[in-house]
Amino acid sequence: MITGADGDTFHGDHGYVQYQIPPSPRRLPVVMWHGGLQSAKTWESTPDGRDGYQNVLLRHGFSTYIIDQPRRGRAGRSSIGVATPGAYPGEAGLFNSFRLGTWEPPSPPVWFPGVQFSQEPEALAQYWRQCTPNTGFEAYDDVSRALHSDAMAALLERVGPSVLLTHSNSGQYGWRTAIKSRNVRAVVSYEPVNFAFPRDAPPRAPALPSAIEHVEAIQVPDLLSEQDFAMLTEIPIQLVYGDNIQSRPTAILGMELWRTNIEYAKQFVGEINRRGGKADLLLLPERGIFGNTHFPMSDLNNVAVADELFNYLSRHGLDR
Amino acid sequence: MITGADGDTFHGDHGYVQYQIPPSPRRLPVVMWHGGLQSAKTWESTPDGRDGYQNVLLRHGFSTYIIDQPRRGRAGRSSIGVATPGAYPGEAGLFNSFRLGTWEPPSPPVWFPGVQFSQEPEALAQYWRQCTPNTGFEAYDDVSRALHSDAMAALLERVGPSVLLTHSNSGQYGWRTAIKSRNVRAVVSYEPVNFAFPRDAPPRAPALPSAIEHVEAIQVPDLLSEQDFAMLTEIPIQLVYGDNIQSRPTAILGMELWRTNIEYAKQFVGEINRRGGKADLLLLPERGIFGNTHFPMSDLNNVAVADELFNYLSRHGLDR
Repeated sequence: MITGADGDTFHGDHGYVQYQIPPSPRRLPVVMWHGGLQSAKTWESTPDGRDGYQNVLLRHGFSTYIIDQPRRGRAGRSSIGVATPGAYPGEAGLFNSFRLGTWEPPSPPVWFPGVQFSQEPEALAQYWRQCTPNTGFEAYDDVSRALHSDAMAALLERVGPSVLLTHSNSGQYGWRTAIKSRNVRAVVSYEPVNFAFPRDAPPRAPALPSAIEHVEAIQVPDLLSEQDFAMLTEIPIQLVYGDNIQSRPTAILGMELWRTNIEYAKQFVGEINRRGGKADLLLLPERGIFGNTHFPMSDLNNVAVADELFNYLSRHGLDR
Repeated sequence: MITGADGDTFHGDHGYVQYQIPPSPRRLPVVMWHGGLQSAKTWESTPDGRDGYQNVLLRHGFSTYIIDQPRRGRAGRSSIGVATPGAYPGEAGLFNSFRLGTWEPPSPPVWFPGVQFSQEPEALAQYWRQCTPNTGFEAYDDVSRALHSDAMAALLERVGPSVLLTHSNSGQYGWRTAIKSRNVRAVVSYEPVNFAFPRDAPPRAPALPSAIEHVEAIQVPDLLSEQDFAMLTEIPIQLVYGDNIQSRPTAILGMELWRTNIEYAKQFVGEINRRGGKADLLLLPERGIFGNTHFPMSDLNNVAVADELFNYLSRHGLDR
């Protein structure tokens, strides 16, 4: 809250949450945090109009909490302004980096063979329309990480012990939340794009083709004190990635983002486990689940992806 | 959709809808449209944490559709930009114009006696936080009215015949939607702030105290063809207003807005009925329901206000 000299006020920078509790719910609720450009819609329904994780998890007996993070969607009131840009055609770039296939205008989009995304034009239109802009500047730095993880910690203060799902950009906020709130009992992170490391054990940056520099600028690790990082060894953590991620360097920015992400993810998981933690990396194709995009929770096979989640929570006794 | 010269695309300017269908629903769903600064949150839960109209109507057997209008909330992607301003303390002005009482900083807020709003500080904080800014310019003119009513008409194309609830600023968009979509079977409008009139029968502007001019600039009527206005005579229309609206001119802008609104509302209702329509004006205090603010659907007595809605729909055979 900001108070003017005369006592008038401005409230902002909060998150928004929408929840549903099924009859006789399982003990731990599942709290779901969208990624960049997204809102709670990510988890609500799929671009092709099927049940999203919200209903899939409700049917499985979990209470669900889906959020709009501060300065996004219904939590739009921000103490820091931003200019929303209006229209600039740029969905081709998202088509590539969200791994639906390759789209290099003026050529038409080419879908990955077997991609788990409906080829109905309406599904793609809905997918673009579920993007929604920030209403306040997001820096992806210490300040942003503190703001967003504080908001989630405040929610968990009310909800109590929970399983936290993150996606993409919210991955980095999830690690911070797990450090500051004992109510995070596990984190399952879908395709996180940033990681945390102890200050004295920073990650080794994967080699990039000389044509690509942007990726390094995006992937700035969150460097933590030993004490903070140790918190991440105390809960089960799973990182989940989909299909069509190259294992060798390419000259394509979107591809390099995912290739190097997996490299960082392996180091992150390794660092946690070296210190006695319980982290693992689930590469869906290695489990025989193919064709997933950057949005496994809303892909055509999202029920199979959810089954992996249910198995994981069961293995850790988190689904009672 | 906007397509660049190279075929790349931008999708925006759509609305967002969230719906729930109870077992064995009543035949007509109820579609709810928030006002200025608001989102679907208006109908979802109250500032003091009770059920909003969404649950109240679900319990009564209605299917509910609550929206974020184009360029608001989860429907934030806009082809026209806007600069979101960041923090400027100004909640005192809203306290007055939303009729919680009077707040003239540096004096502290003074609540109206018997106002139907929780005096817990947390309720007021939640009330401010449910405001969320536009992500694209809203002009309140013909262009805005066309954009917003087109989006609602497109939704009703999918939902089918429905009862439409509007609030405050969406009142003007609701009239337009009723003109272009036969699926609007009734409109119940909570405290609309703008009205439609036939071009050849414009309203008589209520006299304003010389100190007040802003109100006139806000209350620009939507002037329609005879044919368009005639559509408004074909469905039941109810306008609902709360308490603490002055009947005599004052020197206070917020007060004048509501006094003159009621004057316009009476002319609007009169014009519809003169042409054979079925419009009525429900002033809640005249029904013995006191203390309502600009948000009767989320006030402390919102269940009593909903009962008025249920009675109205029943009288018109719209609740089967």
